Amino acid sequence: MKQQLSYLLLALLLPLLAPAQTPAITRLNPTNWWTGMKNGNLQLLVYGPQAGTLSYTISYPGVKLVKTSAVENPNYAFLDLTIAATAKPGTVSIVGKKGTQTVTQKWELLARDNRPKGQGVTQADLIYLAMPDRFANGDASNDKFADMADPNSDRANPFFRHGGDLQGAAQRIGYLKDLGVTAVWFTPVLENNQGLTNEGGTMRSAYHGYGFTDHYTVDRRLGGNAAYKAYVQQAHAAGLKVVQDAVYNHVGNNHWFIKDLPMKSWVHQWPTYTNTSYRQQPITDPHAAQIDRAVTLNGWFVPFLPDLDQQNPYVANFLIQHAIWSVETFGVDAWRIDTYMYNDQPFMNRCNAALLAEYPKIHIFGESSVTSTVDQAYYVRNKIDFPFKSNQPGGLDFVLENAMLAGLKEVGTPAATGWDNGAQRVYQALAQDAVYQDPTKLVTFIDNHDHNRFLSEVGEDYDRYKIGLTWLLTTRGIPSMYYGTEILMKNFKDPTDAEVRKDFPGGWSGDKEDKFTAAGRSAKENEAFNFVKTLATYRKTHPALHSGKLMQYLPENGLYVYFRYDATGTVMVATNSTDKSAALHTARFAERMSGFTNARNVLTGETLSSLTTLQLPAKTALVLELGK
Amino acid sequence: MKQQLSYLLLALLLPLLAPAQTPAITRLNPTNWWTGMKNGNLQLLVYGPQAGTLSYTISYPGVKLVKTSAVENPNYAFLDLTIAATAKPGTVSIVGKKGTQTVTQKWELLARDNRPKGQGVTQADLIYLAMPDRFANGDASNDKFADMADPNSDRANPFFRHGGDLQGAAQRIGYLKDLGVTAVWFTPVLENNQGLTNEGGTMRSAYHGYGFTDHYTVDRRLGGNAAYKAYVQQAHAAGLKVVQDAVYNHVGNNHWFIKDLPMKSWVHQWPTYTNTSYRQQPITDPHAAQIDRAVTLNGWFVPFLPDLDQQNPYVANFLIQHAIWSVETFGVDAWRIDTYMYNDQPFMNRCNAALLAEYPKIHIFGESSVTSTVDQAYYVRNKIDFPFKSNQPGGLDFVLENAMLAGLKEVGTPAATGWDNGAQRVYQALAQDAVYQDPTKLVTFIDNHDHNRFLSEVGEDYDRYKIGLTWLLTTRGIPSMYYGTEILMKNFKDPTDAEVRKDFPGGWSGDKEDKFTAAGRSAKENEAFNFVKTLATYRKTHPALHSGKLMQYLPENGLYVYFRYDATGTVMVATNSTDKSAALHTARFAERMSGFTNARNVLTGETLSSLTTLQLPAKTALVLELGK
Repeated sequence: MKQQLSYLLLALLLPLLAPAQTPAITRLNPTNWWTGMKNGNLQLLVYGPQAGTLSYTISYPGVKLVKTSAVENPNYAFLDLTIAATAKPGTVSIVGKKGTQTVTQKWELLARDNRPKGQGVTQADLIYLAMPDRFANGDASNDKFADMADPNSDRANPFFRHGGDLQGAAQRIGYLKDLGVTAVWFTPVLENNQGLTNEGGTMRSAYHGYGFTDHYTVDRRLGGNAAYKAYVQQAHAAGLKVVQDAVYNHVGNNHWFIKDLPMKSWVHQWPTYTNTSYRQQPITDPHAAQIDRAVTLNGWFVPFLPDLDQQNPYVANFLIQHAIWSVETFGVDAWRIDTYMYNDQPFMNRCNAALLAEYPKIHIFGESSVTSTVDQAYYVRNKIDFPFKSNQPGGLDFVLENAMLAGLKEVGTPAATGWDNGAQRVYQALAQDAVYQDPTKLVTFIDNHDHNRFLSEVGEDYDRYKIGLTWLLTTRGIPSMYYGTEILMKNFKDPTDAEVRKDFPGGWSGDKEDKFTAAGRSAKENEAFNFVKTLATYRKTHPALHSGKLMQYLPENGLYVYFRYDATGTVMVATNSTDKSAALHTARFAERMSGFTNARNVLTGETLSSLTTLQLPAKTALVLELGK
Repeated sequence: MKQQLSYLLLALLLPLLAPAQTPAITRLNPTNWWTGMKNGNLQLLVYGPQAGTLSYTISYPGVKLVKTSAVENPNYAFLDLTIAATAKPGTVSIVGKKGTQTVTQKWELLARDNRPKGQGVTQADLIYLAMPDRFANGDASNDKFADMADPNSDRANPFFRHGGDLQGAAQRIGYLKDLGVTAVWFTPVLENNQGLTNEGGTMRSAYHGYGFTDHYTVDRRLGGNAAYKAYVQQAHAAGLKVVQDAVYNHVGNNHWFIKDLPMKSWVHQWPTYTNTSYRQQPITDPHAAQIDRAVTLNGWFVPFLPDLDQQNPYVANFLIQHAIWSVETFGVDAWRIDTYMYNDQPFMNRCNAALLAEYPKIHIFGESSVTSTVDQAYYVRNKIDFPFKSNQPGGLDFVLENAMLAGLKEVGTPAATGWDNGAQRVYQALAQDAVYQDPTKLVTFIDNHDHNRFLSEVGEDYDRYKIGLTWLLTTRGIPSMYYGTEILMKNFKDPTDAEVRKDFPGGWSGDKEDKFTAAGRSAKENEAFNFVKTLATYRKTHPALHSGKLMQYLPENGLYVYFRYDATGTVMVATNSTDKSAALHTARFAERMSGFTNARNVLTGETLSSLTTLQLPAKTALVLELGK
């Protein structure tokens, strides 16, 4: 821990101790920009030996250098530019002078392309979360690089890279289309040139992607910037959207700017290493102490992920511009934000506003792993008069995930009919939606790369699995599912997260089984795949599940009934969470069923010619499209 | 259930079938009124055979009969009066005419007295909740009356009346003063002339007081109106306030107006008997069905407590006027409202506003037995933009009670240091106070007449008992305690509520033990009594616990620390919820402890000359007054 601090001090002091160098510019971030952006201001980070000691000029029509800022580390300069609406695309020369020396660096001002970007995701979508390193390997030549901090690739080792890449993912776009997916979310694709570390016996590796080492470079092992751009274009061509996983809170300790810190306040500094408490309460608690708030927000997530200080305006500008640059460069449609609650919230609002100003339809949904509805509401547009008002459109719905998993574990047990148990948990979680400006913008899920796999979480009970997926795909919110859930992948995240991040079978050439194909899947796996496919395909064309209202009824005797409905149709979901079949008398649901006389079972195609009493088999959720 | 409906129909039809009677007036409600009230409007309910067939006139200076309304039942008339600011006290003649017949009834317009009333309760108070029938018997002659529906009194039978009364309670005002109590809350004192019923093997009796049969009469067995008035005056003289327990939602089925219903819509009617679901969610759930809302609100609490329809303006006026009448007549200071969440909420707002208009300092706190903070917030002044905005100043804090009890049960177990367990539960409940306009107006508690007794709830563990009482008496909110908790009364409410409503030993002449006196209490009971007394007495004179802010720190390793502080002082409460003694390093609490160098242990009187490290014994809460 103490090394951490010494290391940072050293990084700050080294340039001062080093002999005078010839000034140079080795990096410009953003690496390029565009004409015709709504916001004409840009802060260009200029980096290189003694780059901060140069006097800068820019001579380009429509581009004005408003201010140059030197900071503690002489290797940095920050240039505030304005780019006029009249500026034309072209190559801008960034000219730095010191005495008789002149340093010139070219910087591109591009024309914006008219490809789709920032399309957003809505309730009409189904998001599929995959870890690119563990999904499919399309290019064996990029599995490892000897010049990277972790030069290994070994599928037998859960901590090493496995070689999956964007090229491999691109080859499986058809698979996702077939499943009924409409949007892909990859764990972060940016360079994570981090080594493996052993923290008191726990191996920490970076194949998950959450420790950036260069914001402007997609990891070579995933195919680099070109492969990412190509992936998005192919996905778009196939009608899939792409969600980018953003990390503002921290970077990898191998990040180039951490190794040569612009200034001490670039990251949160503590007298001794201080980890975040991972506690949500000090942020919203009106009775909280300053130190508890500071530890939650400014404590480091783990020792090798330095915590960025977003109250530092240079840091804030860097991150916001990178977000815009990513959408504009790659054409991504939505923005998932890691560890949302640990970020400086006024910064988050600025960042969200900047993205929304350029891309009004983009959806933004952060990860705030909280347990209470009140806390979850704090991080999205809400109806609570908190001292701070978040502008985030969406968020991952951890409260509903908790409720669904806890409730599903009780399905088929005596607790299924408990006062606050079983489906009641789901009902009760949704019943608190009054706190959100728009709960339909929350992204719902039943597992992800940090949680136990869904099938294991529900005791490998296939009935619970089907009920859970039915809820996910029919209730309010934007559903997301984790790769492999559709083929019954299972595991608990103990002893390590790698247990829930196994390779998708068939993603590597030579794999014994190819579960991307029906022939490679077992009968049960095909049953599961087709279950998801049936519901997901139905969702695609039924607006009641996109923009219809939700009406849910108080569960009675373990039977939970809700409706999605609009002028075009009514879908009824009736869950029997008990272990006995039940007759559901529908008179109570007249407010929604009045006028309907028959129904089609969406999952079986079967027609019901009477709706007076519905037979609900044990541990089953029926999905019925009501008809007249 | 069906009988219930038939009974009501019969009550409506009987007057129509009966032979023509000579009109008469047998009741006027309110039974009197006052000059000089802020609100000059009053709706007088006139009842008697054929009273609704009379034409009314009133001739009294300043009193104007604005409108007479007949309703379905000819035995009722409703007279809308205005009482001018200039009206003088005196006897008003209510004159009804029909043909040659004239009926005159006298009705008093009194001068308001200047005794204290509606003083309110605040965090400076400690409320003591007692059941008058089970607390102390001051007048053996009123134990039972042969002409009442339940003519029995037998202390050996848990369902019968036991004979306690207001005279007995008045004799124990000194005991409460000695304990440090500043306000008394009795379960309802109004007439409950209800019989015993056997509901499928469960005996239902009315000694608890929640089934009114006449709003304007205090139960004879408690001493009647005179004893209640005397009690309040004696309590006030001793510096105690009095809280009245109000019930708007329902009345006893023996209520005189239920036996001769003014109109069908006086109570909620259902095609077949419908009980409330006792569910909170349909009220706040934006996705709820109308039928679920209706069942929660309009379903009956139990079959023998008809559910009043407060959307009926006659019912609303009746209830609101009775509330004002009660405060003005008896001089009560605060208003506890039973089954608050089951009432029509717009009616509740009108009623609260009417009380606050006449008595600006009165405190109103309803019982909404909910489990979520969001739902609890709905029923008080809150910071959530619900479609309905409650104006209730306070409410009973069920969320905190749940948290305290669940947390205390984990004290001394391995769960005490669990991620969301032990003191964390209390910390987390308070951390959601951002949803309330003013959480300090919530009334806190750890047991009541409907819950298991506190000592039993915490496993008869005296250490947990002391921690719980310490939290109750030092954290934010207005503390209330249930009679007998201070003398270690225990029990679970199974098999019947009567188990937690046992007679206070010594309240009846001839009792073997008199626990109202130190000599009658065991050593342990005196220890408990003195524990409460010490803290309660300290509270009385220390404004930091009345109006000081709360600052709470994230519990660490089962140690939970909070402060109450203002310009006059700082009180530190440090809880060790583990089963091992611990050293608490205080550097983390500098925001509150800076400048303080010593402390007085409020419970032991011991002085601490250094605050750097505090020794916390296992399962203990220290209360320290910090000094400089």
